[in-house]
Amino acid sequence: MLIFGDEVMDAPKGWELIEDRLMAEYKFLDFASAKQFVDAVSELSEKENHHPDIHFGWGYVVIELFTHDQEKVTELDYQLAEKISSLKPE
Amino acid sequence: MLIFGDEVMDAPKGWELIEDRLMAEYKFLDFASAKQFVDAVSELSEKENHHPDIHFGWGYVVIELFTHDQEKVTELDYQLAEKISSLKPE
Repeated sequence: MLIFGDEVMDAPKGWELIEDRLMAEYKFLDFASAKQFVDAVSELSEKENHHPDIHFGWGYVVIELFTHDQEKVTELDYQLAEKISSLKPE
Repeated sequence: MLIFGDEVMDAPKGWELIEDRLMAEYKFLDFASAKQFVDAVSELSEKENHHPDIHFGWGYVVIELFTHDQEKVTELDYQLAEKISSLKPE
């Protein structure tokens, strides 16, 4: 849970605050399908002009969100998390 | 330095053995150019059928090589490291 101004927000479904980063892990069947998701997240982050740190390999993608110029997780990260989640409905 | 059979190999230039992984970090000017390198490494790793763990974000790519089915760094990792390095001459 994070408090932005007067607003209290829960992490989007599938996301967790770990060591001050908003994180989510997605599982895939192989490298190619993990990479496809990385491509979609990258395209979205360019469009939103807000860029995650991305970790991936055979069968998995981990997305890490943080607003570097404010040195904390902000609403911008929560908004991008929601949009990333909508790219891959569970 | 690693010993494979009778052969002693130094890590390729720019690569280091860190916590039993063969690692290299590459710097870029922005997210898009980091992503372009990720695309090239991904394509190569599909062709070689040997897949790294890849970490990237704004201005950087970290490649982590390990042969998971042998639970150690092998010659295969050294060979892929050389090929990855040749994708981005320093």
